This record gives sequence, structure tokens and C-alpha cells, in this order.
Amino acid sequence: MAGSAVLGLGSIVRVQQSQPPAALLEDLTAAYRVLAQEGVLDGFGHVSARHSLSPSRFIMSRSLAPELVTSGDLLEFDFDGNALNAAGRALYSERFIHAEIYRARSDVRAIVHAHAPSLIPFGVTDVPLRPVYHMAAFIGSGVPIFDIRKQFGGTDMLVSDAPKGQALARTLGDKTCVLMRGHGVVVVGSTIPIAVGRSIYLELNARIQTQAMALSKNVTYLDAEEARRVMDAGENRGYERPWELWKMKAMGK
Amino acid sequence: MAGSAVLGLGSIVRVQQSQPPAALLEDLTAAYRVLAQEGVLDGFGHVSARHSLSPSRFIMSRSLAPELVTSGDLLEFDFDGNALNAAGRALYSERFIHAEIYRARSDVRAIVHAHAPSLIPFGVTDVPLRPVYHMAAFIGSGVPIFDIRKQFGGTDMLVSDAPKGQALARTLGDKTCVLMRGHGVVVVGSTIPIAVGRSIYLELNARIQTQAMALSKNVTYLDAEEARRVMDAGENRGYERPWELWKMKAMGK
Amino acid sequence: MAGSAVLGLGSIVRVQQSQPPAALLEDLTAAYRVLAQEGVLDGFGHVSARHSLSPSRFIMSRSLAPELVTSGDLLEFDFDGNALNAAGRALYSERFIHAEIYRARSDVRAIVHAHAPSLIPFGVTDVPLRPVYHMAAFIGSGVPIFDIRKQFGGTDMLVSDAPKGQALARTLGDKTCVLMRGHGVVVVGSTIPIAVGRSIYLELNARIQTQAMALSKNVTYLDAEEARRVMDAGENRGYERPWELWKMKAMGK
Amino acid sequence: MAGSAVLGLGSIVRVQQSQPPAALLEDLTAAYRVLAQEGVLDGFGHVSARHSLSPSRFIMSRSLAPELVTSGDLLEFDFDGNALNAAGRALYSERFIHAEIYRARSDVRAIVHAHAPSLIPFGVTDVPLRPVYHMAAFIGSGVPIFDIRKQFGGTDMLVSDAPKGQALARTLGDKTCVLMRGHGVVVVGSTIPIAVGRSIYLELNARIQTQAMALSKNVTYLDAEEARRVMDAGENRGYERPWELWKMKAMGK
Repeated sequence: MAGSAVLGLGSIVRVQQSQPPAALLEDLTAAYRVLAQEGVLDGFGHVSARHSLSPSRFIMSRSLAPELVTSGDLLEFDFDGNALNAAGRALYSERFIHAEIYRARSDVRAIVHAHAPSLIPFGVTDVPLRPVYHMAAFIGSGVPIFDIRKQFGGTDMLVSDAPKGQALARTLGDKTCVLMRGHGVVVVGSTIPIAVGRSIYLELNARIQTQAMALSKNVTYLDAEEARRVMDAGENRGYERPWELWKMKAMGK
Repeated sequence: MAGSAVLGLGSIVRVQQSQPPAALLEDLTAAYRVLAQEGVLDGFGHVSARHSLSPSRFIMSRSLAPELVTSGDLLEFDFDGNALNAAGRALYSERFIHAEIYRARSDVRAIVHAHAPSLIPFGVTDVPLRPVYHMAAFIGSGVPIFDIRKQFGGTDMLVSDAPKGQALARTLGDKTCVLMRGHGVVVVGSTIPIAVGRSIYLELNARIQTQAMALSKNVTYLDAEEARRVMDAGENRGYERPWELWKMKAMGK
Repeated sequence: MAGSAVLGLGSIVRVQQSQPPAALLEDLTAAYRVLAQEGVLDGFGHVSARHSLSPSRFIMSRSLAPELVTSGDLLEFDFDGNALNAAGRALYSERFIHAEIYRARSDVRAIVHAHAPSLIPFGVTDVPLRPVYHMAAFIGSGVPIFDIRKQFGGTDMLVSDAPKGQALARTLGDKTCVLMRGHGVVVVGSTIPIAVGRSIYLELNARIQTQAMALSKNVTYLDAEEARRVMDAGENRGYERPWELWKMKAMGK
Repeated sequence: MAGSAVLGLGSIVRVQQSQPPAALLEDLTAAYRVLAQEGVLDGFGHVSARHSLSPSRFIMSRSLAPELVTSGDLLEFDFDGNALNAAGRALYSERFIHAEIYRARSDVRAIVHAHAPSLIPFGVTDVPLRPVYHMAAFIGSGVPIFDIRKQFGGTDMLVSDAPKGQALARTLGDKTCVLMRGHGVVVVGSTIPIAVGRSIYLELNARIQTQAMALSKNVTYLDAEEARRVMDAGENRGYERPWELWKMKAMGK
């Protein structure tokens, strides 16, 4: 009985260690719905968060359209892409995007993968995506493009194993996002609101830049110092102001 | 009374043979509403499904705006465009699009005809619609254009009889879709979710390609091998993930 | 008492003569809301219908944002722009658009005046609006442009008196619509659904044509015979199919 | 007790002097929601109104996403950007935009600051924003561009102190709006509906002008006399007609 109590305690301790805080699960569920609501995700794409208590784990939904995700759909993954509590549920085939970026970037605590229409053109042309206004200062140091064909030849375009995830993470480097040629984008952040906010304003910046370039060949972008100063000043206050709004609308509260 | 019972039984048997499964009718009703919800159909256009138990028949709504279709509006047609249970209700004049494609393509089990605005430009210019991202790999082998004027001269633009339907089916050939000059598009698939999913992503691909071409003259499309590999890998998993979402939203559940 | 009864009867007879049928008022109210719902009208613009029993009168709302119009806001006007039952309520200053077109065109029974954004560019450039698909066959014979400056010099751009209305009606001629430079558009039809349907598809055609011209310098439009045959075949069946949908959605039924 | 009564009375008198009329607070709350509803504001941006009884004060929300603002969030500010009743609540860092424009422009009674996507391109290119239709006659005398870099060098792009606010106010001059390079726009008016209406139609005009310029190099704008006459005629009747609609929709009544 004491042993059982010890085991029970051990079990409780282990659960306390691995079970992510409710606030994290709530924010991650909201992130799925916010990104669908704001047109960054449609029936495809996903968002994940690093486990705040087990930093070599991350949380992501089972294979499901973002708008339908509830906290009960969130699974825990290790960096080899194994789900620890899938119970037979289908997984996103591109979970290796998340796994390998968390492995490579200890500063990253949230990752979005999307196919937002306005971003695709910047991955398939020679036109670099640049910050046309202060809301996109986070791309002041550039947006790399990952072309899966270069290293892997003819593929089904999906980052569906560890080597492809690692190649993507290498292309991302220390940047805030990476375009995937003929596929989509990956955006990272140190919090869920930052990864979500960057995804939303990256998409907006792409639309604005497209329109600006249609108007004129002479477009003035934020310069490197301006972009850096916006980031140093707190990058849109960590998106806390719109996050409150987005979450309230997405969760129907 | 025995005779009546026999007749009744015969009638029941016949109904059991020809009555399409409830799941097919439910999915077809959902398809009308999903395509309206996603902006592929407006007050015009239609979608059909091959009868799963009577493969030389297909199911389509009576003449009605897509968003209003319920299962009670679905009629059964033969390949000559005759409705078997119209009971005087008006029919879509372009039902011959569906009849002749089902006749010509035994692999096709669902067909969408739409006037989606972003697709029209690719039918009236010399710019081919090409897969700008993996979601549109199904057009990797090209999108033919049907110009009704070539064979039929000055018309009211409608594919409203068998010869026009046959000409359209010939232009479609073995492809997944065909643009109709100055009119719209026809998209086919081996299931309702595939025909619907292709219609939605064809429209998105057209918007993205238009934006990419506005940005630069150098646009990189999926190459033939990439497109084929996406298809071989299951073409977006048969659209099962977004279909669950689309259907839930369209049916208000 | 008999005299009173006679007066009462006379009054009833007069009301029966001038009171438009309830169906007309219902359709006109719906037209305001449909056009707002479909993005043709915003807080400005208006739609009118010729009085079916008093053909030298027309019905239009008091000065009110279209989305707010109810049957109680509909007033009766003569061709001099006088409201017969305004009871002090404010009137649209541009009612002369409607008055003078009804006076000049006995075939017209419904008129829409709108500022739809996608149409404005075709009124301020040298690019003619042309039918890029069969849904816009009604502009197969061309869209004239009314430039108020030519006859009236510097103005506040409004067609706010009879001479300006007459000049606009002359520019319209026997066409289905007329663009107003730096202002908007007027669309006419022989029924409310036709005027509304044309307005909606004119706006769509403008968007499609803009995109087609961005893609290529070689755009194929409906030719004159095709446009004529679409019209002869019933012009989209008089828009009865989408009208049922639009009205149901706009009236919340 | 008498002293207490006197103090109480003094307090009441002071409150009566400084408390803005309920109608002003209601309209300002509505303005936040209308501008979000119409796509001019997203999670950022703000609108203010001059205090109708204390003209050297203005009213603005605490730091909050526009769509969430209620009358309880409205604070009173002096022209140095001090909030008089913040009670520790966070403030918009760019309140100096409002303070310095109210100080410089006694005719201004309402100010909007927004990042509307369609306006950004006109602040980062050499293409002037011009009135393409009568709804934007209020920019007939031109739209100046404020480039913070010219006077302040490398910054975080925010107008977050008095000197920057004063520089912005100087660039605005006597105009109705000013674009901010790589940032957004400020729109002013003599009433809340006018500042809101101008913001909405400025955004629409930008979209229309972008499309018109894509169609043709020859775009005809309102000329100076036309723009002036539209303004002299009451500038869209002070936007009273759409304001009634916008407010009703935004406040859910």
C-alpha cells in the first residue's frame, strides 16, 4: 500500500512533469482556430508548441483540419516524430518539419506550417519577400527559400521524414520563417502568439508587397536598422493586443 | 392480394436496385453546399455523382441554385440526359456535360461544372493554367480548353445537347479538368470529395498563378515528375481531411 | 352616409389603382438587400422599379442605406422626381437618374445605381468593359460612358436634376447599362431580377476582365453573335435561379 | 461635513465639466467597431474624438484591439499625451499622433490611425493617391507622405513621443489625411462620422486606383474643381446615411 502510494506518487510526479500546462493547450487549440479564421490555414497546415516542461517534446494535433481541433486532439511528440499518446489516431505526415526545427533551434517554442495563397508566389519566383511596413519587421533579415528538389530530386513535395526536416531546418537557419517552393511556408516564434502573429502579418505583407510592386518599380522597404529597432522595441508588443482579440473570436467567447 | 404483394415486392426490389445509397445522396447534397460556401459555385453551376449501384446512371439536382439543394431535389439521369424521376421539375440545361463525360470516362464518379471567376481568365487567354503548388498537382498533365465556337460556330455558349457534351468530353480526354472558353470549367474525380477538392484548389491555384505572374516572368511550376509523385502518393490523401471540415460547415453541423 | 360610403369607395378605388402590388414592393425591398449582400451597393446607391399599374410612376426608397430599406420606406415618384407620399422624409438627390430613364425607355421596369469598386476603373480609363463570359452577354453591344463634365463642366458629380438625368439617359441610349466617369454605374432591366442580376454579373465581369487583361494582352471576348444568342436564349433564364437564392438569403428566410 | 459637501460638489462640478456627452462616447465606441468591421482597422490602430466640452482634451481607448472597445475603455487625454483617468491601464504608445494634431488643428474633432493594407503601397512608392471617384473628393488637394526617417533617422517607426507627433502634424498640414511611409495612415475630420467615412472611402479609393492603374496608364481623376464642388456640396452628406448603417451593424442593433 505504501509501495502503491509511492508508485502512485511517482506516477503523479511523472504526469506533472510531462503533462503540459492547461494554458499552453488552450493557446495551442486557439492557434489552430485563429489561423483558420484569419485565412492563413485552410483544411491543411498545422501549428505546434514546444512542451514547456519537457523541452525535448512538442505538442501538435492529430491529423485534422485546423478549424476542428480541440484540446482532446493534441498529442505529444518526440523529436523523431513519434507520438507518445496517439492511440492509433492518424498523424500529420509533415510532423518532421516541427521536430527538426525544435531540435535545431532552442529559442523556438512555436511553429506554424501553412499554404497561404498570397505567400506561394514569393516561393516560386525570384522576387524576395521584404518588409513593406513595420508589422513585418521580423523579416528584416531576409526570408530563405527551401527548394526540396535541390537535395531530394523529384518528390511528392512533402517534408515527411527526418532528413527532409533537417534540410528545411538548415535552410531556415536563424531566421523567423522559410518559404517552401511550390508548397508553403514555415514560421517560428518564441511564443504561440508571436508565431501566429508573424504568420498573419507575413501573409498581409505579401499581399501589400504584391500590390506595391504592381503600382511601381520603386518600392521603399523598411531598412535593416528600422527592422532591427522594431524588433528591439518588442515586435508589436509580442502581439498581445491582437492575440486577445483573435483568441476571443476564434474560441467564440 | 398475393399478386399485389408480388408487385409490391418487385417494386421494392427495383427501388433497392436503383435507389442510391443514402451516404452518396448526403455527400452529393453536401457537395452542392460546400462548393457554394467555398466560392466555386454561385447561383449557377452544378455537381453530379455516378450512381454507385447503376453505373450507367448519375444523380444531380433539379434546376436549383446550389446553396438551396437538399436530398429531395436530387434526380436520377440516364446518359441521354433524361431524368427518371423529375415529376415535372425543371432540369439543368447543361446536364449533357455530365451525361457525356460519364459515358466516356468509366473512371469518373463525380463531376463539377462551375463559373468560378478566377478560372475564366485562363480560358480566354493564351496563358496555360499550371500547378504553382502541390495542392494542384492534378493539373500536372495539362488543362485543355474547350472552345464551343470551333465546332459549333455561334451559339448561346451552353453545352445543352448531346453533341456538345460529346465534344466537351473529347476535349477533356483523360485529364482531370477542362476549361470552357468564355464560360467556365468542368472538373472530374473518382469520388465526390476528390472532384470537390480539385475544384476548390484549382480555383486557388488560378488566383496564386495570376499573382505569381504579376510578380515575375520567371515562375517555377511543379515539374512533371513532382506532379506525378504527388498524385501517386494519394493526391492530398483524397481530400479526406478538408472534406470533413467542409461538409461539417456546409451542413451546419 | 351614402356619400361618405361613395367617398370611401372612391378612395379605395384610387388606392387600388395607385398602390403597387405587394409582390413588387417585396421584390424591390429584396433588391436593396440583395445588392448590398452581393457587394454591389454599400451605404450608398439605390434601386427602383416602375409602378406596374401606373407606368408613369416609379417606386424607390426614401434616402436610406440600402441594407436598411423595408417596404415602409418605399415611396412613389413621378417623372419630375416628385415623391407623392414622402411625408417630409429625405429623398435621394439622384432620383432624376431613375425618373429620366423611365421617361425615355418604356421597356425599362427596374433601375440600379451603384458605386461598385470594380466598375469604377472602366469609367476612368480608355479600356472598354466587354463580356468575358456568357454571364455578361448583356453588354455584348457595348457599355457607354457618361462624363458629366462634357455637358455640365465642373460639378459635384451628382445627377441631381432633370437635365443631368436626361443627358445620362441619352448616353445610356438603348443599352443595358452606362458607366459614369468618376462616379459609378446605372444598370437597367425589364424586371427587378434582371436589373439586379445584371448588376451582380457586371461587377463580376469587371473583376474577371481586369484579371484576364493582367494575364495577357490577348483576351477573347464573346463575339457579337454569341452575345446576341445568349440574350435570345433568355439571358440566364431571367436570373430566376439565383434570384430565388439571393432573395432567400437577403430576407433571412 | 459642509467641507465634505463642498468637496463633493466641487468634484461633481468638475465631473460635469469634463465628462463628455454620452452620445460622443457612444459614437466613439461605435467608430472603433465600425472601422474594424469595414476592414480599416485590425487588431491595431485607434480612433479618437476631441472632447466636446473641453476642447483641449481628447477621448481615446486604453490600449486594446479596436473590436473589443467598450465605453468603459475610453480615457481622457491632454495634449501632452497624459491620460487623466487611466487607473494603471496600458495606453496606446502612439497617442501623440492624436495629441499633436488636435493641438495644431482646431477644426479637427476626430482622428483615425490605421494600417489598412491597400493604403500602404501609396506610402512606399512614388505613386500619389488621387481621387478616382467622387466618394474620395476629400483628397482632391493631395495626400502628403510622412517619412519618419527624414527627421528622426533609424527608428522603430512609431510616432511615440511629442516631437514625432508634431512632425507628423506638420506634414499633415491643412489636409484631410497623411500617409506614413512603411506604417499606415492618419485621417482627420470635423466629426466622428466624417473621419470614419473618409477612412473607409480612402481605403476603397486606394483599391480602385490600384486596379485602374493596372488597366491603363491613362486614368482620369476628379479634377480640382470637381473635388472642391463635392466638398462644398456637403461631402457625401457628412456620411450620415452610411453612418446609420455602419453603427447599427457594428453595435449589433
